[in-house]
Amino acid sequence: MSLLEKIQSPADLARLSSAQLDELCEELRGVIIQTVSHTGGHLASNLGVVELTVALHRLFSSVDDRIVWDVGHQCYAHKLLTGRAAQFEHLRKSQGISGFPRPQESPYDTFVAGHSSTSVSAANGLAKAKTLTGESGHVIAVIGDGAMTGGLAYEGLCNAGRSDDRLIVVLNDNKMSINQNVGFVARHLSNLRTGRGYQRFKNAVNKSVSRLPVVGKPLHRLLSRTKMSVKQSVYHTSTMFEEMGFYYLGPIDGHNLNDLCRALEVAKTANRPVLLHAITEKGHGYAQAVKDPDVFHGVSGFDVETGTPAGGGDSFSKTAGDCLCETAEHDDKLCVVTAAMTGGTGLSAFAARFPDRFFDVGIAEEHATTFLSGLAVGGCLPVFAVYSTFLQRAYDQLLNDTAIMNNHVVLAVDRAGIVPDDGETHQGLFDVSFLSTIPHTTIYSPATYEELALDMKQALYRDTGIVAVRYPRGAQVAIPSYKPDGKPFAYFRNVNARTLIVTYGRLFSHALEAVSALKEDLPLSVLKLNRVHPLPAEVLRIAAEYQRVIFFEEGNRMGGVAQQLGAALLENRFFGQYEMHTIDRFIPACSVDEGLHLCGLDTEGMIRAIRGGEDRDR
Amino acid sequence: MSLLEKIQSPADLARLSSAQLDELCEELRGVIIQTVSHTGGHLASNLGVVELTVALHRLFSSVDDRIVWDVGHQCYAHKLLTGRAAQFEHLRKSQGISGFPRPQESPYDTFVAGHSSTSVSAANGLAKAKTLTGESGHVIAVIGDGAMTGGLAYEGLCNAGRSDDRLIVVLNDNKMSINQNVGFVARHLSNLRTGRGYQRFKNAVNKSVSRLPVVGKPLHRLLSRTKMSVKQSVYHTSTMFEEMGFYYLGPIDGHNLNDLCRALEVAKTANRPVLLHAITEKGHGYAQAVKDPDVFHGVSGFDVETGTPAGGGDSFSKTAGDCLCETAEHDDKLCVVTAAMTGGTGLSAFAARFPDRFFDVGIAEEHATTFLSGLAVGGCLPVFAVYSTFLQRAYDQLLNDTAIMNNHVVLAVDRAGIVPDDGETHQGLFDVSFLSTIPHTTIYSPATYEELALDMKQALYRDTGIVAVRYPRGAQVAIPSYKPDGKPFAYFRNVNARTLIVTYGRLFSHALEAVSALKEDLPLSVLKLNRVHPLPAEVLRIAAEYQRVIFFEEGNRMGGVAQQLGAALLENRFFGQYEMHTIDRFIPACSVDEGLHLCGLDTEGMIRAIRGGEDRDR
Repeated sequence: MSLLEKIQSPADLARLSSAQLDELCEELRGVIIQTVSHTGGHLASNLGVVELTVALHRLFSSVDDRIVWDVGHQCYAHKLLTGRAAQFEHLRKSQGISGFPRPQESPYDTFVAGHSSTSVSAANGLAKAKTLTGESGHVIAVIGDGAMTGGLAYEGLCNAGRSDDRLIVVLNDNKMSINQNVGFVARHLSNLRTGRGYQRFKNAVNKSVSRLPVVGKPLHRLLSRTKMSVKQSVYHTSTMFEEMGFYYLGPIDGHNLNDLCRALEVAKTANRPVLLHAITEKGHGYAQAVKDPDVFHGVSGFDVETGTPAGGGDSFSKTAGDCLCETAEHDDKLCVVTAAMTGGTGLSAFAARFPDRFFDVGIAEEHATTFLSGLAVGGCLPVFAVYSTFLQRAYDQLLNDTAIMNNHVVLAVDRAGIVPDDGETHQGLFDVSFLSTIPHTTIYSPATYEELALDMKQALYRDTGIVAVRYPRGAQVAIPSYKPDGKPFAYFRNVNARTLIVTYGRLFSHALEAVSALKEDLPLSVLKLNRVHPLPAEVLRIAAEYQRVIFFEEGNRMGGVAQQLGAALLENRFFGQYEMHTIDRFIPACSVDEGLHLCGLDTEGMIRAIRGGEDRDR
Repeated sequence: MSLLEKIQSPADLARLSSAQLDELCEELRGVIIQTVSHTGGHLASNLGVVELTVALHRLFSSVDDRIVWDVGHQCYAHKLLTGRAAQFEHLRKSQGISGFPRPQESPYDTFVAGHSSTSVSAANGLAKAKTLTGESGHVIAVIGDGAMTGGLAYEGLCNAGRSDDRLIVVLNDNKMSINQNVGFVARHLSNLRTGRGYQRFKNAVNKSVSRLPVVGKPLHRLLSRTKMSVKQSVYHTSTMFEEMGFYYLGPIDGHNLNDLCRALEVAKTANRPVLLHAITEKGHGYAQAVKDPDVFHGVSGFDVETGTPAGGGDSFSKTAGDCLCETAEHDDKLCVVTAAMTGGTGLSAFAARFPDRFFDVGIAEEHATTFLSGLAVGGCLPVFAVYSTFLQRAYDQLLNDTAIMNNHVVLAVDRAGIVPDDGETHQGLFDVSFLSTIPHTTIYSPATYEELALDMKQALYRDTGIVAVRYPRGAQVAIPSYKPDGKPFAYFRNVNARTLIVTYGRLFSHALEAVSALKEDLPLSVLKLNRVHPLPAEVLRIAAEYQRVIFFEEGNRMGGVAQQLGAALLENRFFGQYEMHTIDRFIPACSVDEGLHLCGLDTEGMIRAIRGGEDRDR
């Protein structure tokens, strides 16, 4: 029986010896590597926090303790130690467990995470609530250095540091922020790492607590007596974190369980915010991931022996990247901005070929957008390649810093619609709704690569203001019968039809299948939108010719295109039947097919909806 | 003739002597004080940057130079020096000039500003564009220390510091961030101010450039020769700004024109990002404003002699504050959060009475929201009092960090609807649209104080998830005939009516007036929504009884309640006439009455719309 099998809850860690804890870490690594090689997921970041997770659960095992994992994609060892080892093989599957913290799943998952840089703010709130309610237990935020490139983390640290609550922020410094061409975070942390701090910390802690067992009798009394001297000898005097109001502890080796446990013991005794700086290695324990942490940050599966990642091939992302490369060849005003998603948005080639016109701003969608608007005012033609879900962060920067001036910026909105496997926090279901609220905004939702390329050209060279081209994750479903022409919509008229299907994007292929399946029973026309906002005026005219209009939308109901069309039809005196099939809930981890099925938006669901309405009619 | 009258454009500053420049500063202060005492506006911040503005326009007067004013409410002297002195008496009026930078108004207004912390990101984009296009001229961002509490400023500084473009960030340090109970920004800047830097800087600059006229022949060559030595002796070696990649210059006295001009000369010679730290005094030159910069931050007018501000009295803000105070007396779980808007949101009394449960997080709406969600998970009952326009910044934190967990948080959304005098950037026209897109969200839009208090109680104690109570700036229009009961809507049925008016919030009183004015000609029923989202189901049933439904909405058309109702009516087989009178554009500075008139939403516009439709019908 493996050690992991004996861990039913974090409390069981107390029974393990120091050597067994090391062994457990090896086991956790093995399970994570094997599982992710099949399920896909976040590998390198999870391998980096194995010891940290074990140390945290060894020291903070009460249900009153609250661990908040930033971004969430570093929680696999946490899930394995908190009663979910048996389900771990179903990681990121619709009936399995989420790849991110999910309070619905376990009381040990404190806070939903999936977007970066939120943990300190959330933990600040939790710690303040403990102070106000007098509830016992500790609050710990675990945040990576990469997440510290986001402004929300800065706001959180500034505010948490001002508080007088007990709060431990563990800075998991795996040098991710170095990707940003050595920015502030990387430089500041590098100064801390290379300073004398590390050795000084070890000496000081060893001196103070070396004769104590790592875990054992309460250390509080002893440590609080030694605390001041530890503090004075350990803490730097000029880190940003101290200026923010934290006790700064570190830096320590984040793969040394002994050091981690000792440092957390010290942190536990403080009665105000502490920042513990732990240095870890992304991918630690799996050579291929250490060598190429970017590739193994998020993978779709890989060969464990060789480290060869699965997948590749064409995708909407690659099409967008290729299209931007090609355009940049001929237009030296074209610039591309990404917020730490170069690979994910298909921009690796662009970044290599046009380094002067490519900007990875870190996890900073707000800055990216206002920067984009500045580039536009300065005469450039800027494109922000961004996941739909992360663009949510830039709503005000689009509205206030861009749309009021009617600046021309292009948004290449990747991962629009249902996104496989990542769950609620990563679905791209809101972009059409929130972008539509912004005056002077145009939104395209191409169904195929070819259409994406046509839309991108129009967005760059014909339209004005904010123009979004949105497309799903992964590959197209080729539609041989469809030849896109860049027009705002395509109308497939059946002269016998009294019912019109309206849809856009990926659902178009399902709609064609549904129409085909029903063609013996029921003649149907199809209107496929390409420009989904503003709605082409002719759509109202066409719809008026039908007795029944059914809209299938892979997007949020409120504020979506179906709702926009419904109100416009009514205002224009449409007297037929109108049915909206959209999404009005958060969608947990699932495949795209499962998600569409769940929402009644796959071919089967469409057939049922079309038939059902007919039945209801009779 | 005053000196100011001789300034047609910034180029005219070159003709003034040093003594005349000082005199000009006095004149500018006088005009600003006199004008704002009548028009209302931002006083203290504008008085603080008079010398800085004169120095900037003396040194950077070419049309190619781009000055980006953060928040924008420090641009009055700038407007006076850039050809708008004659219109200045119409500051913040519908036919006058905006109180914020407005590119439509002048080529000297580079970038729309109104929300804080955007300038560095925008300037980063402008500077990068100059590098890419080879355009000449400088880019200067002017940002206050208060704005540096916002995460976007941090993101902007981190990214601008990484760039190799010519960019000058002037940090206008008026110690505003100290309001946040001495947080990081205040502490960091205080360390810089009290260090030896100031004297060292003066000595170094004096040594290098003391024999040069402040303005005169090109200093570039000379300064670039001396640059390295200046740099080495002037720049600190351990400021955050240097770690970010800036040359740090300062701190200098922001009211000393000579020092400012010399420092800007030095900054001008650098070929990479420079941060110039200028220390200013809010309200400088007007004793009352220096004494009470918070009161004179934004005022509605005041007596110049005594400094007594106009206004006061009851308002929706005060009602909300009173209601929260009263509730907090009986419920020690109630907490209130604000993002640097304690006074504006009516919370001064709450802050004084319940300091342990009141949190001013700085200009950090994103953090405020995630912090709120953490408080909720921790068992508190948190309220975020925030202006509608600033809540736009927290869209993702509401959606991802709050709604997915269905955490119960209350948003007291102040300044909803048309906001007088501040213009496009401050209108509260989008909150209903973007909040409606978020699952599990409830929105109330009370029409009177009494209704606001009822709604707040329901939001706190009956509803779940995100609950917003939104209300306009200023005072209620009392409606003697209306007795709110907290129900989702109130229905005023006229049995003879075939037309139903639907509206909510402040427009209710206009609707009643319109109905009263038309009562001889046309019987009308009125449905007044209180809970505007989700739409009460009975509304559909009631509307179905009418041949014509007219919706008047003081809010954005796309995603608004009128659109939501229209689509729902059509889906529910409503076959009557439906008309939406909403807002689908940005609204410039105007009074509330002017704004409503412009949009056809005042009583007159309603009467016209109701009659017009009838005419069309016949």
